[in-house]
Amino acid sequence: MSTTNDISCSSTTVAARRTEVTLADYRRIVVLTEGHTTPFSAKTAIGLLRFRGSDVIAILDSETAGQTTQQALGHGGETPVVASLSDVEAPDALFIGISPAGGRLPPQMKAAIHDAVQHGIDVVSGLHDHLIEDPQLRSIAEESGARLIDVRRNDLRETAKHATFREGCLRIHTVGHDCSVGKMFTALEVQRELVKRQHDAEFLATGQTGIMIAGQGIPIDSVVSDFVNGSIERLVQAHQDHDILLVEGQGSIVHPAYSAVTLGLLHGCAPHGLILCYEATRTNTKGLDHVPLKSLSELKTLYEALASSRFPAEVIGVSMNGRRISAEEAEVEKQKVAAELGLPMCDVYRDGPGILADAVLALGKKVGTCD
Amino acid sequence: MSTTNDISCSSTTVAARRTEVTLADYRRIVVLTEGHTTPFSAKTAIGLLRFRGSDVIAILDSETAGQTTQQALGHGGETPVVASLSDVEAPDALFIGISPAGGRLPPQMKAAIHDAVQHGIDVVSGLHDHLIEDPQLRSIAEESGARLIDVRRNDLRETAKHATFREGCLRIHTVGHDCSVGKMFTALEVQRELVKRQHDAEFLATGQTGIMIAGQGIPIDSVVSDFVNGSIERLVQAHQDHDILLVEGQGSIVHPAYSAVTLGLLHGCAPHGLILCYEATRTNTKGLDHVPLKSLSELKTLYEALASSRFPAEVIGVSMNGRRISAEEAEVEKQKVAAELGLPMCDVYRDGPGILADAVLALGKKVGTCD
Repeated sequence: MSTTNDISCSSTTVAARRTEVTLADYRRIVVLTEGHTTPFSAKTAIGLLRFRGSDVIAILDSETAGQTTQQALGHGGETPVVASLSDVEAPDALFIGISPAGGRLPPQMKAAIHDAVQHGIDVVSGLHDHLIEDPQLRSIAEESGARLIDVRRNDLRETAKHATFREGCLRIHTVGHDCSVGKMFTALEVQRELVKRQHDAEFLATGQTGIMIAGQGIPIDSVVSDFVNGSIERLVQAHQDHDILLVEGQGSIVHPAYSAVTLGLLHGCAPHGLILCYEATRTNTKGLDHVPLKSLSELKTLYEALASSRFPAEVIGVSMNGRRISAEEAEVEKQKVAAELGLPMCDVYRDGPGILADAVLALGKKVGTCD
Repeated sequence: MSTTNDISCSSTTVAARRTEVTLADYRRIVVLTEGHTTPFSAKTAIGLLRFRGSDVIAILDSETAGQTTQQALGHGGETPVVASLSDVEAPDALFIGISPAGGRLPPQMKAAIHDAVQHGIDVVSGLHDHLIEDPQLRSIAEESGARLIDVRRNDLRETAKHATFREGCLRIHTVGHDCSVGKMFTALEVQRELVKRQHDAEFLATGQTGIMIAGQGIPIDSVVSDFVNGSIERLVQAHQDHDILLVEGQGSIVHPAYSAVTLGLLHGCAPHGLILCYEATRTNTKGLDHVPLKSLSELKTLYEALASSRFPAEVIGVSMNGRRISAEEAEVEKQKVAAELGLPMCDVYRDGPGILADAVLALGKKVGTCD
C-alpha cells in the first residue's frame, strides 16, 4: 500500500501492505457476481463497470455466462460474462462484485474464489466476512502467492478532534433517503464533471465499492463506532490540499439500521454543502419494507440541522435516481420536487451532473473557497 | 456466561464463557485506579463504589494508598485505598477503574495487572486495548488460571430490523449535552427508584462501567458501526419482558467524536421517553475545549426530531449534574431551566431521582404501558 495507507486506505491485509500493492494498480480485473445480477445485488460490479470499466475484462457468473455485461447487468457494453477464470486471458485480480446487507459471503462464490487463489490471482473483497480469516484460503494463498485483500478490514482507532480544515477546501457530502439510491454515483459523477471543468476535485470513498473504484478510502461501516467520526476527519485532513472534496455518503440519517454510520460520517467530514439523493417512486426502506421513508423536506431539515452543528451547512441540490420511471415521468418528478424544495435538481444518469456541479461551484463562491 | 451471553453481554473472552463466570458473581472486587483519582478519570471506579459498593473491598492506587476511598475519590465511605494486592484479603477480581477517551491502557497500570494475573486473580477491563491480545499476559493467565475479561470485546454482527417490541414495555433513554454528565448514573438511580416503588424496571448498560455494575449489557462504542443500531435492538428484544427499561445513553447527538454512537443507540432502542442530562456550568465539550456546547433547548429539539422517526417520542425530564455548584446555586439553576424547558427536573445526586421516576410513570400512563 501507499505510505498514506493508515489514513486513506486502511483496509487491506498485512500481506498487501508488505508488497506495496494498491487497488488502483489492477488493470485486468474479473468481477465475481455468481447469480447476483439485479442492479441492487450487483451494485459493486456495476460501479466497477461504470467508473473503472477500462480495467474490467470480464464478469464471472455461471448463470449469465455467454452474455455481455450490458445484456446481463445493463452496463459495461461488450465486456463478456464468463463461466470460469480459465475463459479469461491473464487476469490480475478477482473482485467480489456484490454488497449484500450484513456483508456475508454467499456460499456459491467460494469455489471461484478458491480457484482464483490457487492460480495465484489476488482476490479483493468488500464483505464483512474477511477472506483472510478463512484458514484454508489463507494457506492456499500463502502457497500460490495470491493476495487476499479485505477492503473492509481496518484497525482505525482515532477519535475525532473537531479539527480545523484548510480554509480553501470546499467539502460536499452526498446524503440520501435510503441505501442504494446513488450517493456514490452522484459524488463520482460530480467530481468527474468538476475535473473536466479544470477544478481540483477529489472523490473520497467511504464504502467498499467506492474504495474499489478509487483505490483508497475508508470502509466506514466497518470501523468501530467510537472511531467513525475520527476516521473520516483524518481522511479529510489527508486530502484537504484539494480545492473540492466530494465525500461519499452512506445510509440515511433516519435509517433504522445504519443511521449511526450516516451521522458519524456527516459530522466527521464537516461539509459546507449536501447533495440530497433519492430514488423516485421508492416509498419504503430497502430491505425493511415495513418502514416508510420520510419526505425529502423532512430529511432536508434534519440533515441541515445536524450538519450545521459546526457552521451553517445547507442542501445545495437534489440528485434523483429515475431508474424506475420513464424519461417523461422523470421530467414531471423533477419539476415537482424542484418546486417543493426550491433547489437545483437532476437525474444524473439521464441529464449528467452539470446542474449539481454548478451548484457546488456556486456554493464555493458563496463560502469563499472557489474563485 | 449466562445463556443470553451473545445478546446481553457479548463482551467477555472465550475463557470466561467457557467457565460460565458472570461479572455479577464477583463479591471481593479490587478496583485499580493507579494515579487516576479525579472524578472524570476514575469514573468507572466511582460508579462501582456507588452502585456495587458492597462488592468492592478496596481501591488499588499507590498514589493515594492509606486514605479511604471517600477521602481519595469522594465516594465509598470507609473502603480503603491500598498500595498492593497483597494488602487485601482474598480478592476475587481486579477491575480496571478508568474510562479514558480512546480507551488505551496507561503503562503504569501494567505491573498491578501482571501481579493480579500471576496470583490467579481475574482481571476485568473496559478498555479498547484488550488484555487478551497481550501475549505475555495471556500466557501468564493460562498458567495461573486467571481469566482476562475484556468488557468491550465483542463480535456483534446483527443489523437492525426495525423490530416491533412488546407493547407493554416502556423504554426510557438517557441522553445528554456531552460525555460524563450522568447518563448512566441517572438511568441507574431512576431504575432503582422504580424498583423501590414495586415496578418491574430494568437498567440496560451500554458502556463499560454500566456493564461492570449490571453484569451485562452491550459495549456499544466498541461495536462495528454497521451493527450499532442492531445490537441495541437485540438487547432490548432480550429484555422486553420487563415493564420499564432504562437504557443508558452515550455521548451527545452533536458530539464531534461520538455522535455516531449516540444516534445508533437512540434509533436502536426506539425510546418512548428521553431524560436529558447535563452538567451545570459546563459550556464546552469535555476534552475538546474549542467546541462550545449547544443549548438544552436546541438539543431537546434535535433529540426529539431524531427519536421520533418511528413514533412520537419526547423529552420527559431533565437531570442536572450539579457537582460544580453549591446547593443554593443548584436551586436557582433548576428553576431557570425548568422554566425555560417546561419540564420536570432535578439534581439526582442532591434531590434523589423521585421527580424523574414520577415523569417516567406519567409517560407510561400516557402511552398506555403503565397502570
